[in-house]
Amino acid sequence: MTTIKDSVHDHIEVEGVAEALLDTEEVQRLRRIKQLGTVQLVYPSANHTRFEHSLGVYHLASRALDHLGIDGILGERVRAAALLHDVGHGPYSHNIESVTHRHTGKYHDDVGELLATGEVGDVLRAEGLDPARVAELVAGDGQYGQLVSGELDVDRMDYLVRDAHHTGVPYGTIDTERLVRELTFVDGELVLDEGNVQTAESLLLARALMNPTVYQHHVARISKAMLRRASERLLEQPDLTAEQLRRMDDPDLITALRTTPETEAFARRLDCRDLFKRAVWAEMADVPDRVIDADYEEIEALERRIADRAGVEWGSVIADVPGRPSMTESTTRVMVGGEMRQLGKQSPLVSALRTAQRQQWRLGVYAPSDETDAVGRAAADVLGLDIDGALVSDVRHGVHATLDEFAE
Amino acid sequence: MTTIKDSVHDHIEVEGVAEALLDTEEVQRLRRIKQLGTVQLVYPSANHTRFEHSLGVYHLASRALDHLGIDGILGERVRAAALLHDVGHGPYSHNIESVTHRHTGKYHDDVGELLATGEVGDVLRAEGLDPARVAELVAGDGQYGQLVSGELDVDRMDYLVRDAHHTGVPYGTIDTERLVRELTFVDGELVLDEGNVQTAESLLLARALMNPTVYQHHVARISKAMLRRASERLLEQPDLTAEQLRRMDDPDLITALRTTPETEAFARRLDCRDLFKRAVWAEMADVPDRVIDADYEEIEALERRIADRAGVEWGSVIADVPGRPSMTESTTRVMVGGEMRQLGKQSPLVSALRTAQRQQWRLGVYAPSDETDAVGRAAADVLGLDIDGALVSDVRHGVHATLDEFAE
Amino acid sequence: MTTIKDSVHDHIEVEGVAEALLDTEEVQRLRRIKQLGTVQLVYPSANHTRFEHSLGVYHLASRALDHLGIDGILGERVRAAALLHDVGHGPYSHNIESVTHRHTGKYHDDVGELLATGEVGDVLRAEGLDPARVAELVAGDGQYGQLVSGELDVDRMDYLVRDAHHTGVPYGTIDTERLVRELTFVDGELVLDEGNVQTAESLLLARALMNPTVYQHHVARISKAMLRRASERLLEQPDLTAEQLRRMDDPDLITALRTTPETEAFARRLDCRDLFKRAVWAEMADVPDRVIDADYEEIEALERRIADRAGVEWGSVIADVPGRPSMTESTTRVMVGGEMRQLGKQSPLVSALRTAQRQQWRLGVYAPSDETDAVGRAAADVLGLDIDGALVSDVRHGVHATLDEFAE
Amino acid sequence: MTTIKDSVHDHIEVEGVAEALLDTEEVQRLRRIKQLGTVQLVYPSANHTRFEHSLGVYHLASRALDHLGIDGILGERVRAAALLHDVGHGPYSHNIESVTHRHTGKYHDDVGELLATGEVGDVLRAEGLDPARVAELVAGDGQYGQLVSGELDVDRMDYLVRDAHHTGVPYGTIDTERLVRELTFVDGELVLDEGNVQTAESLLLARALMNPTVYQHHVARISKAMLRRASERLLEQPDLTAEQLRRMDDPDLITALRTTPETEAFARRLDCRDLFKRAVWAEMADVPDRVIDADYEEIEALERRIADRAGVEWGSVIADVPGRPSMTESTTRVMVGGEMRQLGKQSPLVSALRTAQRQQWRLGVYAPSDETDAVGRAAADVLGLDIDGALVSDVRHGVHATLDEFAE
Repeated sequence: MTTIKDSVHDHIEVEGVAEALLDTEEVQRLRRIKQLGTVQLVYPSANHTRFEHSLGVYHLASRALDHLGIDGILGERVRAAALLHDVGHGPYSHNIESVTHRHTGKYHDDVGELLATGEVGDVLRAEGLDPARVAELVAGDGQYGQLVSGELDVDRMDYLVRDAHHTGVPYGTIDTERLVRELTFVDGELVLDEGNVQTAESLLLARALMNPTVYQHHVARISKAMLRRASERLLEQPDLTAEQLRRMDDPDLITALRTTPETEAFARRLDCRDLFKRAVWAEMADVPDRVIDADYEEIEALERRIADRAGVEWGSVIADVPGRPSMTESTTRVMVGGEMRQLGKQSPLVSALRTAQRQQWRLGVYAPSDETDAVGRAAADVLGLDIDGALVSDVRHGVHATLDEFAE
Repeated sequence: MTTIKDSVHDHIEVEGVAEALLDTEEVQRLRRIKQLGTVQLVYPSANHTRFEHSLGVYHLASRALDHLGIDGILGERVRAAALLHDVGHGPYSHNIESVTHRHTGKYHDDVGELLATGEVGDVLRAEGLDPARVAELVAGDGQYGQLVSGELDVDRMDYLVRDAHHTGVPYGTIDTERLVRELTFVDGELVLDEGNVQTAESLLLARALMNPTVYQHHVARISKAMLRRASERLLEQPDLTAEQLRRMDDPDLITALRTTPETEAFARRLDCRDLFKRAVWAEMADVPDRVIDADYEEIEALERRIADRAGVEWGSVIADVPGRPSMTESTTRVMVGGEMRQLGKQSPLVSALRTAQRQQWRLGVYAPSDETDAVGRAAADVLGLDIDGALVSDVRHGVHATLDEFAE
Repeated sequence: MTTIKDSVHDHIEVEGVAEALLDTEEVQRLRRIKQLGTVQLVYPSANHTRFEHSLGVYHLASRALDHLGIDGILGERVRAAALLHDVGHGPYSHNIESVTHRHTGKYHDDVGELLATGEVGDVLRAEGLDPARVAELVAGDGQYGQLVSGELDVDRMDYLVRDAHHTGVPYGTIDTERLVRELTFVDGELVLDEGNVQTAESLLLARALMNPTVYQHHVARISKAMLRRASERLLEQPDLTAEQLRRMDDPDLITALRTTPETEAFARRLDCRDLFKRAVWAEMADVPDRVIDADYEEIEALERRIADRAGVEWGSVIADVPGRPSMTESTTRVMVGGEMRQLGKQSPLVSALRTAQRQQWRLGVYAPSDETDAVGRAAADVLGLDIDGALVSDVRHGVHATLDEFAE
Repeated sequence: MTTIKDSVHDHIEVEGVAEALLDTEEVQRLRRIKQLGTVQLVYPSANHTRFEHSLGVYHLASRALDHLGIDGILGERVRAAALLHDVGHGPYSHNIESVTHRHTGKYHDDVGELLATGEVGDVLRAEGLDPARVAELVAGDGQYGQLVSGELDVDRMDYLVRDAHHTGVPYGTIDTERLVRELTFVDGELVLDEGNVQTAESLLLARALMNPTVYQHHVARISKAMLRRASERLLEQPDLTAEQLRRMDDPDLITALRTTPETEAFARRLDCRDLFKRAVWAEMADVPDRVIDADYEEIEALERRIADRAGVEWGSVIADVPGRPSMTESTTRVMVGGEMRQLGKQSPLVSALRTAQRQQWRLGVYAPSDETDAVGRAAADVLGLDIDGALVSDVRHGVHATLDEFAE
């Protein structure tokens, strides 16, 4: 057994297959993938990595399995999946995932191939585990997949607390110990036991507060959009495949951006925190559906038109259009009066989250600071936005909107 | 200047009128009034007092005044009100407030007389402050009263964090420093500045989660109801007035209950945590309006009928009927896009709180553990409850509903 | 199994004999005994009780037993001792222990009689445990007594962290989880395993820093001395025995002091924090041996002579003479290079603690604030102190010596 | 004014010259320099950077200046020095400082040239500050240099708490707020005010405990030694100067090591945490003076002889010989009874630190895991060590000596 000191869960005991997996290069690589990518440009202390997060998820999974009374090969498989659930992440975690996904068709939890090969594959097989079944759990499939990747998963329990600890934003402070103790299976479904409506609510509300404050902070979104743009340029280079990009770590990507002429300027801006600024920051109600639903090529075409109209280089315009909030009701289940109920139906707070998500949605158009005026006006025209709603009010007033950032 | 070490805010600097007020007997008495009364029977570490809470409220008020640029006599008045805002509390804080209120007509924030007399009155006048104006602030009146007692008051900011620290329940972990920094006055109204929708939400959601988990935990409610019942018996004694009861501290009340024959049994039960149990625990939908809206005399009459029907002493039945949740929309104001908006309208989460409050409402009927069956059945009849909803499902399943308690 | 939420150790699981003991009146009484007595007059948040501390000690003992692989009847006995180790405390914990000891011959860990009788005795016997053997463990006897009461005991591990959490003074922040994991038995001796010299040092150094800052803070010492004096007066009353005093809880003692004419004035001073002040505060080097080694009667005689010479009432003079620091080398044992070594020999820091203790020692003479000058001069004469060292320098400069107190 | 959220000090307000300095590339570069270098191979959460540490030091300096009543140009100069005190660090902070020092003659606090040139120089001059005088403060010169770099400096106050927060090791938890409040100048010397002996002790003891547990943990030392060795190889490349190496950031160094054939193997070992192991781990008493005092060339010669005798490549042997502990008494000054006293003389604990440092000293010889036996024996011969003391006992028992590491 190996014991590791963690800033969040104190002592984490790693044993069995997980201990053997620790030393693989795939797992060690996670030490060099920042958990929150460019969020550290907003919250300077947010330098934690996927490695310690993966240990934390493994730890919580182990605790939950203990409480559920699950051991043997099934337990080992879940524990392996917990430790490995993020090995599929590219550099800067989610930041450029949409780029690598478009080129490879794979999201970070598509790890079937990764787990079957390399050192991880060797270890899993040596320990008597089928890599394919572990990959299924990582993908959230099957009864026990819910524990690793689902509404009540230990992934979320870890990252909320960890991100709170490392950013200093307290909203993610949930009661992980209570959460793992109260998990139970009823009819093959993972539920929170009787008396835990607030326990369940707290998990979802914590995410609802962390989302705009941390994960979708506009400076994080701007820098992430710049990183995506630069990564696209990188993939136009003859000697780099998307699959290679996906397997880089953070220092690899930083160096590649710095040493490629087409991305050097982006690299320098990111290094010096000389970021684009918001030319447009519009609420969903002010954005036409055709823009919200535009695909990558359509967005690029819009950017070119905006640049033309504003009389700037195309490279000076980044349109950042988040997908529509997923409209699924919360399916977190909790026991109430002996019945299994969906939290989305039981809790008025949780059912309000769908509306809240819509309301937090923002379209951004970003440009170098001396071009935001021209770009903003052009974008309002091209995208068909109400210029007062999108450009003037939100940006003019919004510049100092958030406390936790450098003045722009 | 006096510096005091606090478990929550670290070093608190007390100066000016507040420093002079510290040594008065009225303020020192707060050292002996538990902040959360009987909640410590559920969360054993919750022994903090109104004294350190008052210091914390004073501290946050000072921080807010600094950010708002308010000083001089106005600042001193607000700081005095912050430090004194709880001197009107009786023993066990809110626990028996309804009892003393019925007999004296005063809630804890009705401190006009208290501030005008005694050592506090002397100090205030000596420092050039009018006790009546300080009392107005404590009551929440006027523009600056909002800061001391309102939707965005520093009272709530302190108690949520403090109660979280001392109970171990993390839901109250809000960002007090950000809250006090972002307060501003617009048109005489206290608002949170631009970009603070989540900051405002976090305050209200924290309370919404702490409420059922801590403040209204059923064991806290049972013990509180027992304390109220015992206090009523105490007031039937010839030599004790309600005003005297209100000015007791916790040890006074404990001793009075122990040494009065009519309350001795309650005192012993509370001392030994040998509490009544739930005979009924019913949702609002299952309780007739006439019961929800019954006044003190009507409830007592119902208790007597339940006792009769169950064949037990009247003393064995406590009906605990909370008031209807206050249906006011949240009027917390926050700046959005340069406009002042009501949070209840801006935030879907906050507007859901009204419904959530209704849903968290519970009617309780409590009895000694060997009489809950009989009392439960009788109460269902007398109160006109759906016995399955009220008695069976919630209580049968609900006994172990909450993790953070002793097995009943 | 009962799960209790704790502010320090999060969730504590109580099972077996400990669960049965929880509900006894002897254990529940600890809810009303402040852990640090009058320290809350210095650190206002220090209102935690012996009850949650006892739960914490039980929790750490359980963790240590798990790591040591000890279960069965032996484990139950140790767990029972851990939970019960403080039931022998009188009101205000250690504050008046010297008083009750002089009159009863018993310290708080002399619990043979207490455990054999009452509800605790019934539970222990019902669970198949011999009260006498549990009492031995509480007294620190035998191989496993070291775990409950010894140099490496779980008692100290809990109180340092708990007192830090509730006072806000960070010096007690030790790594309890590592400590309990690294305990092992070698040749019947409790030792810390290889590689834990710093782990062991941290425990002793934490106490060395907490001691003068918290436990022996001069305001705590003054109020404690006043409480002892008042308790002596109480015991002169015809209807109170020392054994009864010892079995009071805090509210009992407060009420007794308030309602007894001879102690009423002390009660009021303590209630209003209108404390005596230091007339003398002298280092060990400046105090004659005959004073350091004086017994209770001799000290009282000295007080009377000081009062006479100063022309004040005897009641106005309290001489507070701590015992000589116990000169035992630290016998904490730790494995180094495969050998068991005494920490006092291995660690230069720990061996310096003996000298540090001597240096922190102070004789205090206290008096009402308007009499400190006269009493200080008289005391210097009577006790044979160097007046410059004892009176002038330390007190004149020392009044504001510590940050964490109210201005005197 | 810019407000930044910090995981340790919560909200940090940056204004004046510091705000202007924030956006320089020299300061932004610190975001990519890990505070503790390879310590994250032991404590996975220790990924914090020199950037947030520099903000923390700036923050504490500002607090101290406020308490000292220092403002104007002097205040600005000290604040600038606090923010800039670490811009001279090379990649991986102290890890390869001895390498760059040998080649450039500069330590990290030798920043005269750095501050005079580049963006930082421009900003300083634009704000009316002389870069040379700021550099003097960084070097610890002059009265106010003590605040930035001295025994009581804000640098140490920040890093102890920050390293504790991010490693999870609690020993660095000091009371920074009290420390900055209690600083004062007496006769041009920075001292801690009356009553702060423990405050001062706590700072030095915290470092004494963090040192072996975190900073000098053997796995950190091994990986640091490997990094130094690899950096030496890098400097043998024709196209890299030591000054260039010093100005790299962490990703630069990682990439350089990976892409240089002579260092590729080291890079891979560090990436996969496939580290050398201890062949020798010897206490000072067991090591001849000629080895302890050997210079770089002599150590290299010894390594070659060890490799020869063991029959392995020279690259397989790293001798890691720390300098003798600096034997200076602690000169931290603290007021006691109105006199300024040296803490090393006042405090037995602090005077014991000198001995403790000697006792914590270890010579390490490291080699690939399958060669430790041969290398250990050869090293004992060549270095003239007592093989039982150095090799057998410490290593055999010491492998699992520390809890907070992966099994080797």
